[in-house]
Amino acid sequence: MVSEDALSRPIVTLLTDFGHAEPYVGVMKGVILSHAGNVQIVDLTHEVAPQSVVEAAFLLETAWAYFPSGTVHVAVVDPGVGTARKRIALRFAGHYFVGPDNGVLSAALAALRPQRPFGEGYAARAVGLGPDVEAVAIENPDVLRQPVSRTFEGRDVFAPVAAHLAGGVTLKALGPPLREAQALPAFRAPAGAGGLDGRVLRADRFGNLITDILGADVAPQTLFIAASQRLRLAPTYAAAAGLCAVIGSAGYVEIALPNGSAAASLGLGAGDRVVAAG
Amino acid sequence: MVSEDALSRPIVTLLTDFGHAEPYVGVMKGVILSHAGNVQIVDLTHEVAPQSVVEAAFLLETAWAYFPSGTVHVAVVDPGVGTARKRIALRFAGHYFVGPDNGVLSAALAALRPQRPFGEGYAARAVGLGPDVEAVAIENPDVLRQPVSRTFEGRDVFAPVAAHLAGGVTLKALGPPLREAQALPAFRAPAGAGGLDGRVLRADRFGNLITDILGADVAPQTLFIAASQRLRLAPTYAAAAGLCAVIGSAGYVEIALPNGSAAASLGLGAGDRVVAAG
Amino acid sequence: MVSEDALSRPIVTLLTDFGHAEPYVGVMKGVILSHAGNVQIVDLTHEVAPQSVVEAAFLLETAWAYFPSGTVHVAVVDPGVGTARKRIALRFAGHYFVGPDNGVLSAALAALRPQRPFGEGYAARAVGLGPDVEAVAIENPDVLRQPVSRTFEGRDVFAPVAAHLAGGVTLKALGPPLREAQALPAFRAPAGAGGLDGRVLRADRFGNLITDILGADVAPQTLFIAASQRLRLAPTYAAAAGLCAVIGSAGYVEIALPNGSAAASLGLGAGDRVVAAG
Repeated sequence: MVSEDALSRPIVTLLTDFGHAEPYVGVMKGVILSHAGNVQIVDLTHEVAPQSVVEAAFLLETAWAYFPSGTVHVAVVDPGVGTARKRIALRFAGHYFVGPDNGVLSAALAALRPQRPFGEGYAARAVGLGPDVEAVAIENPDVLRQPVSRTFEGRDVFAPVAAHLAGGVTLKALGPPLREAQALPAFRAPAGAGGLDGRVLRADRFGNLITDILGADVAPQTLFIAASQRLRLAPTYAAAAGLCAVIGSAGYVEIALPNGSAAASLGLGAGDRVVAAG
Repeated sequence: MVSEDALSRPIVTLLTDFGHAEPYVGVMKGVILSHAGNVQIVDLTHEVAPQSVVEAAFLLETAWAYFPSGTVHVAVVDPGVGTARKRIALRFAGHYFVGPDNGVLSAALAALRPQRPFGEGYAARAVGLGPDVEAVAIENPDVLRQPVSRTFEGRDVFAPVAAHLAGGVTLKALGPPLREAQALPAFRAPAGAGGLDGRVLRADRFGNLITDILGADVAPQTLFIAASQRLRLAPTYAAAAGLCAVIGSAGYVEIALPNGSAAASLGLGAGDRVVAAG
Repeated sequence: MVSEDALSRPIVTLLTDFGHAEPYVGVMKGVILSHAGNVQIVDLTHEVAPQSVVEAAFLLETAWAYFPSGTVHVAVVDPGVGTARKRIALRFAGHYFVGPDNGVLSAALAALRPQRPFGEGYAARAVGLGPDVEAVAIENPDVLRQPVSRTFEGRDVFAPVAAHLAGGVTLKALGPPLREAQALPAFRAPAGAGGLDGRVLRADRFGNLITDILGADVAPQTLFIAASQRLRLAPTYAAAAGLCAVIGSAGYVEIALPNGSAAASLGLGAGDRVVAAG
C-alpha cells in the first residue's frame, strides 16, 4: 500500500515572460524533473508583458495563496539577467519563492512593503526583512546547473534551486542569509484629497482594466473616473449594461465593458490612472 | 512495492475561455491540488472564443472520449457567472462533467439532444434527463470554497467540486438530483430539400473551417457550397491543390486551403452557412 | 513505503504546430494517459510555425538534452500527414524520439547530418544510420489506435507509441528496423571566403533573431552583417545599447535589440541571411 501522502507530490509553480513559442519553459521543466522526478509543475502564466516586473509581481500575488503549504513559486521576469543583481530564495507563510531580486517576489514580503506615494507609480526599493521572512542569496555553485548561462538563468539557476527546495533542501544550503530585498509598494491605491489615486495594473484578455483600487476601500456609491468617464459599481458582469466598475475575483476594482473591451473603449492600459471619488 | 494502479492518478481536464495571460487556470489548479494532491490535470484548451458556449461544447465533445473512464471534465465558459443559473455535475458513460448549466456540457447529454431545426442556429434549451445520465445541482456549501466569488466560480465552485469527484466523492454529496439540464442541439447539420444545412462551428488555427456536416452524411461526390464557391472532397490535406473539403479527425467536414487559410479566403467564420448538396 | 524511484514517472515531451486553441494536444494526452497512467507529460511548444519542419527540428534540438535519460520526445510537425512518408521511432543517447520521417527528429541523428552547402537553405535528405541510433518504422497495427485517422496521426499513431515506449515496450515491437532516415543538415553556418554564411532559424517572442551561427565559431571582434547593418557582440542583453549580437542560451548567435524587436527593425525572419565576417 502506498499512502495518499506519498502520492501528494511537491508542487512547483512557474511564472515568466517567456511565452509559449519557444521551449524555454519546457527546458526549465526538464531540469526540474531531472533533479526531482516526483514534482508536480503548474504554469501560472508565461505571457507577462516582456520584462514587466510590476505585472508579474501582481499576478504572483493574486495566485500563490491558492496553492498548498510547501509549494515553491518560481518567477522569472528579469530585465537584469546576467548582471550583478542578486538571485534570491525566500520562505514566507510556509511557501517558497525563487527569482531575481528585483521586486518580482514582492508577494512574499507582504507587510514590509511601503505605501505607494500619492501621484507616483510602482518602483522597487530595498526593504529590511522581518522575522516572518527567511531569505538567502543563491550563491552556492553546487546548487546551480553549470556552466551558468548569462542569458538563461531560469534554466541554470532558478529551475535547479526550485527542484532542490521541492526535494527538501533547506534555504541555508543555497547561500548566505539576506537582511533586505527589493520590494514594490503594496498594491493599494493611496488616498488623497480628491479620493483614491488608482492605477491600472494590467488589462486582461477581455479588455477588463484591473486597477490597484481595493474593493474593501470603496463603497457601493463610489464614483470611478477613468479617461473622463464616470462609472459606478455593478454587482456582477452580467448585471452591467455598459461601462462599469466591478470588484474582481482577486478583490480589486476592475473597469469592464460587458461583451466588449473597456481597455479599447477608454484607451487605457497598464500604469494609467483611475480615480475613485466619494 | 507500489502497484501501477496506485500510480495511475485520477485525471481532471480543464476547458475555459480564460486564455493564458492570467493565472486563472493556475489558480484553479492550485485549488484542485490543495484538495487532491494526486490528481493529474490536463488542459483541453483555454482559448475558446470569449463566452462562446457553442464552441466550448463542441470542443469538449470532440475530446472527452479519448480520456480513460473516471476522468472529470470541467468546462467553464459562463456568460451568466454570478447569476441564478445552476451549477451542475453529471455522470455519463463513466466520466464526470462539471460546469454551468448553459449547454456547455452537452457532450454528456448525447442522445437527449434535439435536432437543430433547418435554417436555425445553435441555442440551448432544457431537456429531460434519461437513465444514462446522473445529474445534480451543486448546492452543498461544504463542497465549495468559501466565500464564493461572484466573478470566479471556476476557482470557488468548479475546481473544488472536480477535486472532490476525482477523490471519490459521490454526485449525491454535491447537491440535489436534477431531472433536466440545458442542452444544445446535436452537432449534425439537418437535411432539407436543398441538401444539408451546415454551419461553421469554428475556424481553427490554420484557417480550416470546421462545419457540423458529418462525414458519414456525405458521399465522395457531394458538392459543398461555401460563400458561393463549389468544393469537392479531397482524401487528404496533402492531396488537395486548392480550396477543398476534407473529413477531419473528429469526423466532421472541414473546408480547407492547403498552405493557406480557408477562413480568410472565403470570409467565413463561426455560425456561417456551408451547404452540402447532392 | 514507496521508493522515490517508483514516484519518478516516465516523461513524454510534446512538440507540435497544433497551437493552443483546439484540444488536439489535450486529446493526445488523453490517449497517452489511457495507455500509461503514470506518465508525466511536458509541453515543449505547440506554436511552431505551421508545417515548419526546420523550426521544429531546431527547437527540439535545443531542448531534448535537458530531460533525463529515458524520456520520450514526440514531435508532430507533419506536412505529409496521411501520405506514404514513414512514421519512425528512434533511440539515441538513452532518449526516444517519435514522429514523421521528414527531418523533424534530426536532433537524434546528430553526427550523421551533412553540412549545409554554402549558399543553400535547410532541406531534409536520407542519411544512413550508424550504430549509435536504433531506428524502426512504426508499422505494427497493434501499437496504433484503430482506426488510424488520415488527418490526426498524432492521436492515433504517435501518442500511443509514446505511451508504449514510456511503459517499457521495445522499439522492435513497433515495426521493422530502418537503415536510413531523413535528416536536416546540422545547424551550423558553413564557412566561405567571405566568412560564415549564417541563416536566421527563427524569430522569438521578443523579436530576437536566432541564427545558425555557433557562438563557438566566432570571436569577440567578429563583425555581423544583417540587412546591411554591421553589428558587434555584446556580453549580455543588458549591456547592449542598441542593435547587437549576443550568444544565446542555446549557444547560437542572436541578433537583438534591447527593449525592441530586431526582427521588426531589420525586416528579417526565418531563412534570411546573416553573415559573420572576420
